Amino acid sequence: MHDLWEHGGVTAPTDQPRPLAERPAEEVDAFLATAQESYDALRSAGLTLDLTRGKPAPAQLDLSARLLDLPEGHTSRDGVDTRNYGGLEGLPELREMFAELLGLEPDQLVAGGNASLVMMREVLVNLVLHGGVDSERPWGQEEKVTFICPVPGYDRHFTLLDWLGIETVTVEMHEDGPDVEEVARLAAADPSIKGMWLVPTYANPTGSVVTQEVAERLASMPTAAPDFKIFWDNAYALHHLTTAEAKSADIVSLASAAGHPHRPVVFASTSKITFAGAGVAFLGGSVETVRWYLAHLGKGSIGPDKVNHLRHVQFFGTAQGVRNHMARHREIIAPKFAEVDRVLEERLGGLEVASWTRPAGGYFVSLDVLDGTASRVIALAKQAGVALTPAGSAFPGSHDPRDRNIRLAPTFPQPAEVTAAMEAVATCVRLAAAEKLVADRA
Amino acid sequence: MHDLWEHGGVTAPTDQPRPLAERPAEEVDAFLATAQESYDALRSAGLTLDLTRGKPAPAQLDLSARLLDLPEGHTSRDGVDTRNYGGLEGLPELREMFAELLGLEPDQLVAGGNASLVMMREVLVNLVLHGGVDSERPWGQEEKVTFICPVPGYDRHFTLLDWLGIETVTVEMHEDGPDVEEVARLAAADPSIKGMWLVPTYANPTGSVVTQEVAERLASMPTAAPDFKIFWDNAYALHHLTTAEAKSADIVSLASAAGHPHRPVVFASTSKITFAGAGVAFLGGSVETVRWYLAHLGKGSIGPDKVNHLRHVQFFGTAQGVRNHMARHREIIAPKFAEVDRVLEERLGGLEVASWTRPAGGYFVSLDVLDGTASRVIALAKQAGVALTPAGSAFPGSHDPRDRNIRLAPTFPQPAEVTAAMEAVATCVRLAAAEKLVADRA
Repeated sequence: MHDLWEHGGVTAPTDQPRPLAERPAEEVDAFLATAQESYDALRSAGLTLDLTRGKPAPAQLDLSARLLDLPEGHTSRDGVDTRNYGGLEGLPELREMFAELLGLEPDQLVAGGNASLVMMREVLVNLVLHGGVDSERPWGQEEKVTFICPVPGYDRHFTLLDWLGIETVTVEMHEDGPDVEEVARLAAADPSIKGMWLVPTYANPTGSVVTQEVAERLASMPTAAPDFKIFWDNAYALHHLTTAEAKSADIVSLASAAGHPHRPVVFASTSKITFAGAGVAFLGGSVETVRWYLAHLGKGSIGPDKVNHLRHVQFFGTAQGVRNHMARHREIIAPKFAEVDRVLEERLGGLEVASWTRPAGGYFVSLDVLDGTASRVIALAKQAGVALTPAGSAFPGSHDPRDRNIRLAPTFPQPAEVTAAMEAVATCVRLAAAEKLVADRA
Repeated sequence: MHDLWEHGGVTAPTDQPRPLAERPAEEVDAFLATAQESYDALRSAGLTLDLTRGKPAPAQLDLSARLLDLPEGHTSRDGVDTRNYGGLEGLPELREMFAELLGLEPDQLVAGGNASLVMMREVLVNLVLHGGVDSERPWGQEEKVTFICPVPGYDRHFTLLDWLGIETVTVEMHEDGPDVEEVARLAAADPSIKGMWLVPTYANPTGSVVTQEVAERLASMPTAAPDFKIFWDNAYALHHLTTAEAKSADIVSLASAAGHPHRPVVFASTSKITFAGAGVAFLGGSVETVRWYLAHLGKGSIGPDKVNHLRHVQFFGTAQGVRNHMARHREIIAPKFAEVDRVLEERLGGLEVASWTRPAGGYFVSLDVLDGTASRVIALAKQAGVALTPAGSAFPGSHDPRDRNIRLAPTFPQPAEVTAAMEAVATCVRLAAAEKLVADRA
């Protein structure tokens, strides 16, 4: 792909090019012609690349290869036969291990099946059908239920709300978490606002990390709904890309101290620690929240896969074992994120047609292109054989009001594929930007 | 325990004793006194036995020990990396294997997580929140939803209905399935009747097997609700206790032929084939039903544990491998069922204070004692250290209108424990019956 760019011959990487919008018309016309040439060459290259989903690469999955030979034996620390029914709350030794990692007490944590998304669905269904620990009635009996959604955010969060007929109101995601003043204003004013989504650490897709101050404010802010819930989806709690490891705020303690003990529901999983499809998911919260969840769960479950719990306990050994394991993930994926940044900087730096995040953890880079060009970039990339997450995915109803956000997921492809895909993305961004500037002139 | 009975000295096993109710008062008084003596001796024996739940015994779980060393590799037949996300419908080779066993086409079957009960919950929640393939509206928008429940039946089925606010109407379970004339009458008359539970093969707890004729009637009967559903919980489809293996009726084809293709939703699992807590569950039905289920599932799941699917595929090899495996289960548990029958016959035969099933498959014996004495028997047994399923468990709302049914689950205890537990149960039945007859006299 680098050849293609050389062919474009627009600038050398070390030069800081002038912002495209500030150039005279004829220069932009020339830029467009060159960008079109580069794109045509890209299309003829016949790529097939995929940056759509945050999937671990095979090399990452290989880190957990020993899981396939485990467990040794089938008996838990307490003598439970993990093969049989029972143990709704999950294996105690696994709950202890991840309670330590997530900053919770073991009785504030449930170990479940292979997907935290399923637990989120269960909690929402329970709230709609029955209401929460602190609800006056089931949410399904409210005239309207609304969730605050920091954007850009995680598409599957929004899909779940839509599935349940829950409305959304968006707030901006900043580097230190959601626009907390706006969240507080909304939650205080409207009793139909029953909760919010939040990926507190290395958010999907922005990489934002909720600071202690923001967490405190979220935990303590007055809300018009007595049963306001923070869906604290800490999917990337341990997924550091640098050695400066962000520490997740202790939202359960903060909420308890602020007199709102049942406000947070915490989710986490080993999906991006061991096997994406065969890991263990966790739900945490106040002891009452955990009891509430288990009471509902027990109506339709006889217990999780405890053999897989035991498998994970034996594989990690200790909480430190999990941390050590995450360092090995970092070695594999940090270079891919560095490459995304390198190519974007090299191809787009200084043009002021795009900005992007440099996350210190998590699975995504959030790329903002010129307003009104994200869907064009994604369509161009698709025609060139590079699959990107559909336009608007990071917004409720897939509606990005500025049509500018693109979520990049660089973990799954091979390093060389990341380079090729990012060169292609940059080529599409350049073309779409030039098209836009020329069109706006008319 | 046999000593206790000898001590009672009421009769010799080979004599057929006279029915208790037909005996003169003084004989019943003497029987009561002896029964009380036997019970006192039983209490002093200090037993701790449990016949409450249909759990596989450790020896049964050991049959699948090799599962703990599988899978070899991690790639499916079609080259899919089972460790990663995706494949909502489950691994094709596993679906093919169990489609053959359940008499379905692979595209009529989904392989899911570790519990069919969870799939039942999901289907009910989908129906309440969204309605089915053939629904006019979500069930939650109906004034009332009612399910037909054959009784005695499975307590967890009834618990799920209660959790969702679905009302129940009971029909009697016969040897050939539910009282189908009554089912047809109810379903034709009342549009609020939206469905029914049914364990078609070796039902919990009666061991009933739905005949081809009954299945045809259920598939073809006119129903007032256009979206009437048969929850066909075929949990024991392959769980034969004799070599005369019952063949489950092909409800999906029958319903399709009768013009009600979306009426049945089939459930099954390997919970009592491999590991109770770490098996694979299945959902079947028309292709449209499967598509409907997956569309809802996809809102809150990225796929099942495909590693466990692959593990099961490698363990069984073929559908015949599953059948061979079930024969080994039979060798372990059939003697336990024979022992239940032997002790009950020996201790209660001819007294006409109890009747019980002799199932040809499944996990339970259904014991009917004298009307009004089941809860007394269960309380007596509990005081003597023998845990039985709570009185009324096999009825919606735990209400057994005749207070006569007791579900016995003999698979989990060791053979000697089965004998001891059944001797104890018989002692309690004898005492409760004599108490009742004496009390009724007053």
